[in-house]
Amino acid sequence: MATIELICIGNELLIGKTLNTNAQWLAKRITSLGLKIRRITTIADDLEEISSAIKEALSRTPRFIITTGGLGPTFDDKTLEGIAKSLNLELKVNDEALRMIEEKYEQYVKEGRMEKAELTPHRVKMATLPEGAMPLPNPVGTAPGVLLKANNTTIIALPGVPSEMKAIFEESILPILRKEAGGMIFYEASLEVLGIVESEIAPIIDKVMHDNPYVYIKSHPKGEEKTSKIELHFSTTSADAEMAKNRVGRAIIQISEMIKKKGGKIRPIKATE
Amino acid sequence: MATIELICIGNELLIGKTLNTNAQWLAKRITSLGLKIRRITTIADDLEEISSAIKEALSRTPRFIITTGGLGPTFDDKTLEGIAKSLNLELKVNDEALRMIEEKYEQYVKEGRMEKAELTPHRVKMATLPEGAMPLPNPVGTAPGVLLKANNTTIIALPGVPSEMKAIFEESILPILRKEAGGMIFYEASLEVLGIVESEIAPIIDKVMHDNPYVYIKSHPKGEEKTSKIELHFSTTSADAEMAKNRVGRAIIQISEMIKKKGGKIRPIKATE
Repeated sequence: MATIELICIGNELLIGKTLNTNAQWLAKRITSLGLKIRRITTIADDLEEISSAIKEALSRTPRFIITTGGLGPTFDDKTLEGIAKSLNLELKVNDEALRMIEEKYEQYVKEGRMEKAELTPHRVKMATLPEGAMPLPNPVGTAPGVLLKANNTTIIALPGVPSEMKAIFEESILPILRKEAGGMIFYEASLEVLGIVESEIAPIIDKVMHDNPYVYIKSHPKGEEKTSKIELHFSTTSADAEMAKNRVGRAIIQISEMIKKKGGKIRPIKATE
Repeated sequence: MATIELICIGNELLIGKTLNTNAQWLAKRITSLGLKIRRITTIADDLEEISSAIKEALSRTPRFIITTGGLGPTFDDKTLEGIAKSLNLELKVNDEALRMIEEKYEQYVKEGRMEKAELTPHRVKMATLPEGAMPLPNPVGTAPGVLLKANNTTIIALPGVPSEMKAIFEESILPILRKEAGGMIFYEASLEVLGIVESEIAPIIDKVMHDNPYVYIKSHPKGEEKTSKIELHFSTTSADAEMAKNRVGRAIIQISEMIKKKGGKIRPIKATE
């Protein structure tokens, strides 16, 4: 299965100012397509850190590296410089990117949001891409996304502003990933178990996963100190939605019977496709 | 300044099932102590991945590596095995950890939550630590935290359940980190800027950061497509709280004047210590 790495760039993530909802959104979206995220790396707005993290990710040969953050006009937006450095590429003003940015500012002038649409150095910076990179239109903001092929890995740089990240993903990245996934789907369901502790469920999970080799079962303790409440999460990936559902269904029936025998109670939580 | 790396372990983070609030909580708590998080790595419940990520982090020689997740009784709780593998250490049942776990289950029996407190293999697993490691009491759950010194790096393994992670951190880790920080404090404040776009603020930030070398200023666009709303975040680290506040205050006065000259409006957001 094709693997993907996310690299999230931004001091605000390392000081805890911002909760990394971008990583969760991308992880959920990409997993639902039947693709697998192998690693999420969060680093500072620092050229050396960005370049090292990209190099390290490339050495693990994922099919895609998706970065978030660091594409804007300020001094600490260093993602494109970091990507260029990691691959020993020159940075060059990209005509298509420059046109995209110019059109945005002309539109802002028409809307009365600013007086002049001139291409200041800080604006040209957003159109300065590693050689060979392709800009991706930003439907809701100024800085374009960027796509660059490096051997068998495709590097995709998305902005950190969530609305812009999501818009570029849906418009330009989704079709590429769908094609890569080739019709695989990810199916998941959850059960809530009450009245027995995790160490009592552990050997039951061992048995049910042994009998259902395509289903992954993970326990998530949810209770407070005085109660035993555990979410059991079931997941599988398949080209056939019906088969995926049946696999998970069989595992749920088997585990439910075993838990009841041990004195536990079961409540369904949800089943999403 | 002493640096810290976080390694968050759990498939649920890579499939987007769970938002990584543990990383944000730790990042905020550690930053507020005046220490610096350099990198956050999120990986799967996979022995090779855990062992590689620990080795890679050790090669960057941080003062601390803090892991979250993978300390429980189920088959996919592999953090301690991964740490042992990364350092070529044997895993051994730790008597003190075993005693902590035994006491917990005896307490559960007294509370009527289970019938027998016997030490099953899945329970002994939680007391099986890398040689030389020290268990840390878990005030609200079963699996102890773990502390292990490896050259100049201290590895700390915390559970993934947020209430347990936080309780062990506050009880056992906070005093260690406070000592390491040696009285440094992190000070931050934010302003909201309306009516001018980020590329107009970019050269202003350059100038104000040049004139205020100890203050870091980062812009966070918050507006929707049709409005320009930008949060400016100011931060500094110092041994002297008053000095930190004055530094940030001076930068805010200078930037406010420059933004008003450009036609922007300013609103204070918050100032926290």
